[in-house]
Amino acid sequence: MTTAAVFGSGSWGTAFAAILADAGCTVRLQGRRQELVDRINRDRVNADYLPELSLPDGIRATTDPAEAADGADLVVLAIPSQTLRDNLATWADVLPGDAPVVSLMKGIELGTGLRMSEVISEAGHVEPDRVAVVSGPNLAREIAAKQPAASVVACADIGTAEVVAQACAAPYFRPYTQTDVVGTEIGGAVKNVVALAAGMAEGLGFGDNTKSTIITRGLAETARLSEALGADPATLMGLAGVGDLIATCMSPLSRNHSFGLNLGRGMSVAEVVAVTKQTAEGVKSCHSVLELALRNEVDMPLATGVTAVVEQGVHPRQVAEALMGRPRKHERQ
Amino acid sequence: MTTAAVFGSGSWGTAFAAILADAGCTVRLQGRRQELVDRINRDRVNADYLPELSLPDGIRATTDPAEAADGADLVVLAIPSQTLRDNLATWADVLPGDAPVVSLMKGIELGTGLRMSEVISEAGHVEPDRVAVVSGPNLAREIAAKQPAASVVACADIGTAEVVAQACAAPYFRPYTQTDVVGTEIGGAVKNVVALAAGMAEGLGFGDNTKSTIITRGLAETARLSEALGADPATLMGLAGVGDLIATCMSPLSRNHSFGLNLGRGMSVAEVVAVTKQTAEGVKSCHSVLELALRNEVDMPLATGVTAVVEQGVHPRQVAEALMGRPRKHERQ
Repeated sequence: MTTAAVFGSGSWGTAFAAILADAGCTVRLQGRRQELVDRINRDRVNADYLPELSLPDGIRATTDPAEAADGADLVVLAIPSQTLRDNLATWADVLPGDAPVVSLMKGIELGTGLRMSEVISEAGHVEPDRVAVVSGPNLAREIAAKQPAASVVACADIGTAEVVAQACAAPYFRPYTQTDVVGTEIGGAVKNVVALAAGMAEGLGFGDNTKSTIITRGLAETARLSEALGADPATLMGLAGVGDLIATCMSPLSRNHSFGLNLGRGMSVAEVVAVTKQTAEGVKSCHSVLELALRNEVDMPLATGVTAVVEQGVHPRQVAEALMGRPRKHERQ
Repeated sequence: MTTAAVFGSGSWGTAFAAILADAGCTVRLQGRRQELVDRINRDRVNADYLPELSLPDGIRATTDPAEAADGADLVVLAIPSQTLRDNLATWADVLPGDAPVVSLMKGIELGTGLRMSEVISEAGHVEPDRVAVVSGPNLAREIAAKQPAASVVACADIGTAEVVAQACAAPYFRPYTQTDVVGTEIGGAVKNVVALAAGMAEGLGFGDNTKSTIITRGLAETARLSEALGADPATLMGLAGVGDLIATCMSPLSRNHSFGLNLGRGMSVAEVVAVTKQTAEGVKSCHSVLELALRNEVDMPLATGVTAVVEQGVHPRQVAEALMGRPRKHERQ
């Protein structure tokens, strides 16, 4: 039987721990706060992040990284992207030296432009053949409701991808294997930025034609970026590309989508944060995505527009008008 | 100034006539019923199909095909797919011999397995270089509200595509040119079938993870079919593929989506037709799509499942379970 250690007890870490347990694994869920961990063990519920999910018996929570990692056949990381490097520095000594390490994180490290799997290899001293990425249309609250979902497990080594897929194949969760780690991660990182744009369009009063167009053109610029970084553009046609993008751009459960909606209604970033008490991943990552695009000479008009709204306070309506006013051209350009 | 003849005064034909007029064309809109045509000319509104749109002055309606076609620089066909061949037989004598002929229709001809552009060439005696196809995320009611939308104009001859794109480029409508007619048309034909599946999932109580997965896997099987027919699979990543698919699968304005929703709730096809007084294109075209897939030895599990529901009365829940229970595999298979 597989023993899995999940680091990070937010909503996606918790939902993924439940998937692993439902797939037959013994799971240790590591969280920072003693009080949350105690409540999980006592009430079988993560009341702060995913209150609607009754946690399977196979999950035991702990604050101790060493206890979580001890004897694990599989390590899963589900912590905030920009804290990954510092956390790995702390955990490096306790992580097993041979188990696959799975990233559930979506983002690009600010400053370095590195993808999460690259940060894991670099800061966690994990060979790339052991680093896997799970990404797809996986809204945590729907997973918690055990609605049918599918996802991609990507690893440079197909054998590792297969091991991870086997470990997380639950009746309601269908993993497909992949070897294109770059495409899988770029899809996950850029989709939050596109979701902000789709939310803004909705906030401006536009409907599904406009949102579908934004998603499609957002997909095209994501494919261009990932191709420049060596990915197979076909990956973006899959679950970690268009699949995740649709769920994130369309669902009222998506934080990025909701954040964009408020920006489209004319609120500033500061006002949205003040009202909702939280920020959205796309607000933080649009800058690092655009940095990566500029470094690789890839034109990303949507990400550029979103960054102008988020960082310079340009009104979304101005961005929309500029995008519609670009010279007409062949679709593949 | 371009003179355009639009045959078909349903919602999309009417909305496209307005796009052409707003792009500066003189437009003649041909409809079958004298009473509807008279009301359009008198009230500047198509009360039966698109009552919310005030028609621009540049549109004049007529029942007479010869009057509509006389001196037209551009012919647009927006009639029911399965009536195209018979109508062309009637109109062949009046259609101009040199103007581009644009298809707004989405479907595969029953029996022959031909795409709409192929029927136009065959039954209308129009060289393929003169036949163009317009397809994209273009819900007619949102176009009528002048919300920003984009679309693909595909023609084997890029010069013809450019002429058509020029004619329909309006402030709220952005056409992109393409030469992949096959991919553009297969995207449009199969999306209605996928939208039925997405609607069924919603009717079964599933959320955005499941719907996004259906759209993504539906896109994959559409790409496989179009590739077998000689299309560039990248076309399906564009507006006529994923763009149109998202709008059709997600919008409450989509008839196919709503029809699927009722099937998912347990109604039979006959019951849905009885309640809604209309059928959906996907109900008619799933059979011809599947025929085309079998003839080209392409595996289309979603289209197969939809056809089983529509034609054999299998319950959508059974289809969903069968799809989730297939052996796990690499995503690109």
